[in-house]
Amino acid sequence: MKRLLVINGPNLNLLGRREPGIYGSLSLADIAASVGEEMRGLAEIEWWQSNHEGEIIDRLHAAAYGAGYDGIVLNAGAYTHTSLAIADAIAAIDVPVVEVHLSNIFRREEVRHRSLIAPVCAGSISGFGAKVYALAARALI
Amino acid sequence: MKRLLVINGPNLNLLGRREPGIYGSLSLADIAASVGEEMRGLAEIEWWQSNHEGEIIDRLHAAAYGAGYDGIVLNAGAYTHTSLAIADAIAAIDVPVVEVHLSNIFRREEVRHRSLIAPVCAGSISGFGAKVYALAARALI
Amino acid sequence: MKRLLVINGPNLNLLGRREPGIYGSLSLADIAASVGEEMRGLAEIEWWQSNHEGEIIDRLHAAAYGAGYDGIVLNAGAYTHTSLAIADAIAAIDVPVVEVHLSNIFRREEVRHRSLIAPVCAGSISGFGAKVYALAARALI
Amino acid sequence: MKRLLVINGPNLNLLGRREPGIYGSLSLADIAASVGEEMRGLAEIEWWQSNHEGEIIDRLHAAAYGAGYDGIVLNAGAYTHTSLAIADAIAAIDVPVVEVHLSNIFRREEVRHRSLIAPVCAGSISGFGAKVYALAARALI
Amino acid sequence: MKRLLVINGPNLNLLGRREPGIYGSLSLADIAASVGEEMRGLAEIEWWQSNHEGEIIDRLHAAAYGAGYDGIVLNAGAYTHTSLAIADAIAAIDVPVVEVHLSNIFRREEVRHRSLIAPVCAGSISGFGAKVYALAARALI
Amino acid sequence: MKRLLVINGPNLNLLGRREPGIYGSLSLADIAASVGEEMRGLAEIEWWQSNHEGEIIDRLHAAAYGAGYDGIVLNAGAYTHTSLAIADAIAAIDVPVVEVHLSNIFRREEVRHRSLIAPVCAGSISGFGAKVYALAARALI
Amino acid sequence: MKRLLVINGPNLNLLGRREPGIYGSLSLADIAASVGEEMRGLAEIEWWQSNHEGEIIDRLHAAAYGAGYDGIVLNAGAYTHTSLAIADAIAAIDVPVVEVHLSNIFRREEVRHRSLIAPVCAGSISGFGAKVYALAARALI
Amino acid sequence: MKRLLVINGPNLNLLGRREPGIYGSLSLADIAASVGEEMRGLAEIEWWQSNHEGEIIDRLHAAAYGAGYDGIVLNAGAYTHTSLAIADAIAAIDVPVVEVHLSNIFRREEVRHRSLIAPVCAGSISGFGAKVYALAARALI
Amino acid sequence: MKRLLVINGPNLNLLGRREPGIYGSLSLADIAASVGEEMRGLAEIEWWQSNHEGEIIDRLHAAAYGAGYDGIVLNAGAYTHTSLAIADAIAAIDVPVVEVHLSNIFRREEVRHRSLIAPVCAGSISGFGAKVYALAARALI
Amino acid sequence: MKRLLVINGPNLNLLGRREPGIYGSLSLADIAASVGEEMRGLAEIEWWQSNHEGEIIDRLHAAAYGAGYDGIVLNAGAYTHTSLAIADAIAAIDVPVVEVHLSNIFRREEVRHRSLIAPVCAGSISGFGAKVYALAARALI
Amino acid sequence: MKRLLVINGPNLNLLGRREPGIYGSLSLADIAASVGEEMRGLAEIEWWQSNHEGEIIDRLHAAAYGAGYDGIVLNAGAYTHTSLAIADAIAAIDVPVVEVHLSNIFRREEVRHRSLIAPVCAGSISGFGAKVYALAARALI
Amino acid sequence: MKRLLVINGPNLNLLGRREPGIYGSLSLADIAASVGEEMRGLAEIEWWQSNHEGEIIDRLHAAAYGAGYDGIVLNAGAYTHTSLAIADAIAAIDVPVVEVHLSNIFRREEVRHRSLIAPVCAGSISGFGAKVYALAARALI
Repeated sequence: MKRLLVINGPNLNLLGRREPGIYGSLSLADIAASVGEEMRGLAEIEWWQSNHEGEIIDRLHAAAYGAGYDGIVLNAGAYTHTSLAIADAIAAIDVPVVEVHLSNIFRREEVRHRSLIAPVCAGSISGFGAKVYALAARALI
Repeated sequence: MKRLLVINGPNLNLLGRREPGIYGSLSLADIAASVGEEMRGLAEIEWWQSNHEGEIIDRLHAAAYGAGYDGIVLNAGAYTHTSLAIADAIAAIDVPVVEVHLSNIFRREEVRHRSLIAPVCAGSISGFGAKVYALAARALI
Repeated sequence: MKRLLVINGPNLNLLGRREPGIYGSLSLADIAASVGEEMRGLAEIEWWQSNHEGEIIDRLHAAAYGAGYDGIVLNAGAYTHTSLAIADAIAAIDVPVVEVHLSNIFRREEVRHRSLIAPVCAGSISGFGAKVYALAARALI
Repeated sequence: MKRLLVINGPNLNLLGRREPGIYGSLSLADIAASVGEEMRGLAEIEWWQSNHEGEIIDRLHAAAYGAGYDGIVLNAGAYTHTSLAIADAIAAIDVPVVEVHLSNIFRREEVRHRSLIAPVCAGSISGFGAKVYALAARALI
Repeated sequence: MKRLLVINGPNLNLLGRREPGIYGSLSLADIAASVGEEMRGLAEIEWWQSNHEGEIIDRLHAAAYGAGYDGIVLNAGAYTHTSLAIADAIAAIDVPVVEVHLSNIFRREEVRHRSLIAPVCAGSISGFGAKVYALAARALI
Repeated sequence: MKRLLVINGPNLNLLGRREPGIYGSLSLADIAASVGEEMRGLAEIEWWQSNHEGEIIDRLHAAAYGAGYDGIVLNAGAYTHTSLAIADAIAAIDVPVVEVHLSNIFRREEVRHRSLIAPVCAGSISGFGAKVYALAARALI
Repeated sequence: MKRLLVINGPNLNLLGRREPGIYGSLSLADIAASVGEEMRGLAEIEWWQSNHEGEIIDRLHAAAYGAGYDGIVLNAGAYTHTSLAIADAIAAIDVPVVEVHLSNIFRREEVRHRSLIAPVCAGSISGFGAKVYALAARALI
Repeated sequence: MKRLLVINGPNLNLLGRREPGIYGSLSLADIAASVGEEMRGLAEIEWWQSNHEGEIIDRLHAAAYGAGYDGIVLNAGAYTHTSLAIADAIAAIDVPVVEVHLSNIFRREEVRHRSLIAPVCAGSISGFGAKVYALAARALI
Repeated sequence: MKRLLVINGPNLNLLGRREPGIYGSLSLADIAASVGEEMRGLAEIEWWQSNHEGEIIDRLHAAAYGAGYDGIVLNAGAYTHTSLAIADAIAAIDVPVVEVHLSNIFRREEVRHRSLIAPVCAGSISGFGAKVYALAARALI
Repeated sequence: MKRLLVINGPNLNLLGRREPGIYGSLSLADIAASVGEEMRGLAEIEWWQSNHEGEIIDRLHAAAYGAGYDGIVLNAGAYTHTSLAIADAIAAIDVPVVEVHLSNIFRREEVRHRSLIAPVCAGSISGFGAKVYALAARALI
Repeated sequence: MKRLLVINGPNLNLLGRREPGIYGSLSLADIAASVGEEMRGLAEIEWWQSNHEGEIIDRLHAAAYGAGYDGIVLNAGAYTHTSLAIADAIAAIDVPVVEVHLSNIFRREEVRHRSLIAPVCAGSISGFGAKVYALAARALI
Repeated sequence: MKRLLVINGPNLNLLGRREPGIYGSLSLADIAASVGEEMRGLAEIEWWQSNHEGEIIDRLHAAAYGAGYDGIVLNAGAYTHTSLAIADAIAAIDVPVVEVHLSNIFRREEVRHRSLIAPVCAGSISGFGAKVYALAARALI
């Protein structure tokens, strides 16, 4: 059984509270429970969230050295488009990272069409809502 | 059980013969067999390939009217970046379409960073090699 | 009485079925009938549609050599913005071609603001819905 | 019978005098007479010209409130490409406005390829010489 | 008590009549009355409107030489984005000018994101509807 | 009486010490006292500063859920131009946010002409020095 | 002896009053007197100024038809960079037009580096202060 | 003796009929005969033309697998500038491909300055009219 | 003897562990020891690292007020290209800052060619590996 | 009487031989004689030409130190658009330099619209053919 | 028999010494000998090389006036992309010039994709290594 | 002891004479003496200057073949931004080259922000005035 880490970036702590008409009424905890259920027996998944670019970099480092994760699912939120430093952190570690987005970023404003982290990720999944976490977990195992 | 259609675009008929060091030695038929195996009981999947932009548009239309598909997986190859007409075809039909790419298009030259079809697809999966077909099938069901 | 050819490009075969709220419930055949009625005695109009860029080029060539058309009305759909080859075909023939668009292309996304075929057409008419075909026919006669 | 207003912008008062080899030897008055003849019984058309951006805005406002016009044909000349204020005036009024150009603006220098007023007009007709006025009148009725 | 001049540019004369759902049902005269009320005892405010770029320049010049204004509030409308000549007029006079916009120009199309007059104004206030006039008056006194 | 929160971003803790010839000799605390004085009886204002993008996001979230603020004044400093994550945080909360800048950002280098947060703020005020805080407070009440 | 017309555009009426440290203390009338003196016996020069784009176009038209000028010296001020309509007016008339600028426009901000009227003028002279008028007059005779 | 294939793209079937003043009065068949004559004993050359992007891709594939060609001369016409799919086909096969153009593409409009296929071809020859075919044949042998 | 501070930004804590084939097998501590040795008697150097943009700004502030440093060597890593806030912090303090990079940033992808902090640093040294720290220390003393 | 130096750049040695229909049949020597005649008693003018960027820089340096010139007229030909080094040489010397061009560079291709030397010259004169030399000489005296 | 001149630009004197793994071990002299051999009886070819832009211009001039060359083969090296002055020299002479490049310039960095000299050359050949000289000679005869 | 060559490009021969307020009053000879003193016993340094791009290329070639230099310090002046040919010369030789600039090029106009030679140099040092030569010498030894 694989050990996976899910890292969620800025503003994702508001899931379920923020514009539920758009983002749904499930909180991150609800999604974690549901994904855990679906992947039971296939993977053990740890969930973590931060609004701080630096903390996400620290977490990626920690996950790569001695923590024993087989893969990381990263929803970097808006940092996807502005953080070259997170991209460098992904490139610097050996654990494979899969980029996920709840929504289709290509339907949004132009500044969100360019992903700085995509070139250094193992792959990318976007646009299926909360389902992207389970799909990324499957892709990693 | 869901009925799905997989549409492959230009040059994908050469899979297994073309630069096997990069693209692997599996042909489209091999991949179809393997994905069919993995999705047995979940989905019935039909595979189709063409190098012609117009035929792909015709196929999307045909799939949407009376053919009874529940979803389409589309690997549009290079037409991803140049065919606004395929994008219009996707927007014109009601069957959901998932965009897939075998490789990470953001690691390639700049002209391949922009997907014309991404904004009209239900979602997008790229970079996991042949695994993207099964992941897309799961996303659709 | 003039002989005219109307060439319709990709996805226009879906008119009447595709998003009728936006594009109206008239099919191409309905529009052809209505335009034929309005232009009765002024012009004899032939209607043709294809989703294939190459077939549209072939049709333009055929129309120009020996077919006796006095003018061509071209709704190139999405190929308007991506097909330099159709533009070359128009430039290569002597029959005048009028570009039409059902909708106002300048209200849509930026990639649709540039027409590759406009510089080689006799004129351009856009934004009046199905009326553009009759207006173009009048412009040609 | 419809009441229409034709607004002509900068330098169009020179028609017939200015480079007749290119623009023809017909003055605006000649064109007005000819179009009036063609549309007799269909529409009553008033002609107006100004080289002043502000006067064109004032005229659009006046035409929209209480003047009883059913539509406006606008040849904005060079203001087509530089006047966001005229575009705002068109958007602010309820009378439909059709954009016309005597020549094919896409054959001219790049600064003339972008029309600021196109997105707010009901439609656009260009490239048929003086015929564009009658075509626009027909489109409005 | 300060003497202030409010200059309104193109199409603002239609306030209250034009798309009241968006711009509100208050006319410029209504707004002037309300702002005058709020600023009573603090400032004496004169209101002026024109759709003509040249008249706005003339008015700025006249306001600066001998008219005794302590400040100018300028809602330049669409000229904000196209009139370098108004910007030069502001730079040429000693009376401080405050730029105001009723709506948030950064939510609109890209051509409206660049203000040619912003660099020469004392400050800029946008997005609060009719309240911007009183805020600008306060900023000037 | 309204409850407002003023959030100041990076380097604003140096106000009064940093280039006083340009930014003035008032510290943030001095400004807070002066604004508090001016707004006494109208609003109760809390002041907060951080150099950390993540902390500003956390603070916006906290301010929106259960803290009872009626509005937020945000001087995001350089993050104005680089933080899409702060923009997302503003969009995610219901409390109205007003963007302020001490100086006229359009007089500075080009990278400072684009505000990522402007499109999601209720309004924007810039260029009047420390006066912008009181003007923004008035705009919110 | 030649008859010349000097047209001055927006804000040039302020010469001598506006920032005399930069633009000198000579008014347009002073310059006209001095240039008239220098060119006495060579040319008869008429001076005219307007802040209105439309009036400048009207003046160019009037000068070209029946007024008997041998040449026009045009200092279009900020309209140099924004008025395609003035450029069209110059192209439409047969009298040669020389573009002048008091200052070196290439030392100013980037928006002033592009002259819309330069391509249609007989020549261009910039950067020598008030001397440009006499140099242009010599170039025309 | 080498076996070569010459592939001609869109509109080249009109050579000799289309603007003979520019493109000469030789048809493709005439050119084929003349080149065959010049290369007699050096190479056996097969000629093929299509206006269809998809057919050109199919032909490139067929030529590369089992057909025994030693090299391909490709005049892709307008697809040179728009077809990433043809570029991918060239990259996918082992037979060397030489790009040719009858005219100097750098003298034409800007959209024709970028060749999508140049980076994957063995070399490129342009601007010598019909001579480019024989030069390319020599380069391949 | 001078007192210097070396600030290292994101991902530099991984030096020696991360891709040693490229970045070498020396950790930051190893480099600090070696540089300390080389500069013994010339400068006393303190080393500090953080992955957090905000902490780097805090550290720059602290270093400038009362800490008595004579200069700062800054390897800002990926923040070099994205952090306008760090650039503002450098501009706000009086202690001279020297920018260093281990690798030649102009050999890397385009997003790394623009340094936001270069314009406000005393100087810049890049491309000599770990030697840049000692060179920067020499430049400061 | 003033001493002036005229520097001519690349390909100007061919004047009179090169495309006389466009550039006229006068050689540089003919022009020098004619200008010398016109300026007799006003200025003593030395003429010099080189096709070498480095020699032009050397000549500018030599002219500025000890040679006693009162001004330089520079027709830098194509180096106008590519030589930042000549621009630096002009900026480095105290003798005023006037830029001249025989033709209107704004009518030519876009690469010739930007002058690298304009910002450092005292002024610029273009488009009057050989007359520009005498006009520039007058501007300098 | 034709007389041809081959001009080689900067750094081509190092052929055979510079990165022989890439550019081959043949010097320019070796290539000259080999091409001379192949073209014996067809053309007499003179070889010349310089690293100086100005000398290449001088050589082009000299070759065109009285030297009796029937054509010129030009490998301008890096000046291909930066020298508008060499382009002007080619345009100024009547002898036809063929542009050659040893390598495929479209596979290299973007600054090498634009050739300033291509638009004025008779044709262009690139990417076949040393063979380009003989192919260009054939194209000229 | 190492043997180094310092190459100085255009306009650097004027150091000490040109704008001493900015560039200091030291000539190149003064700097050479001072650097020689500082590096005595560590390196033997030869100094050379030219304003000619071609001579700099010749010098780089000569330095690399048989001259026995261990490294080159290159201050290419304005050629830094325009000479791809010098960049090619650096890439073609085996002796390491260090790029230096007296001033911080990122504080100057945008055309000076891009260094064409940076990608092929061993490293880059800028902004410390005359100190850059000694720092570069140390970096090379």
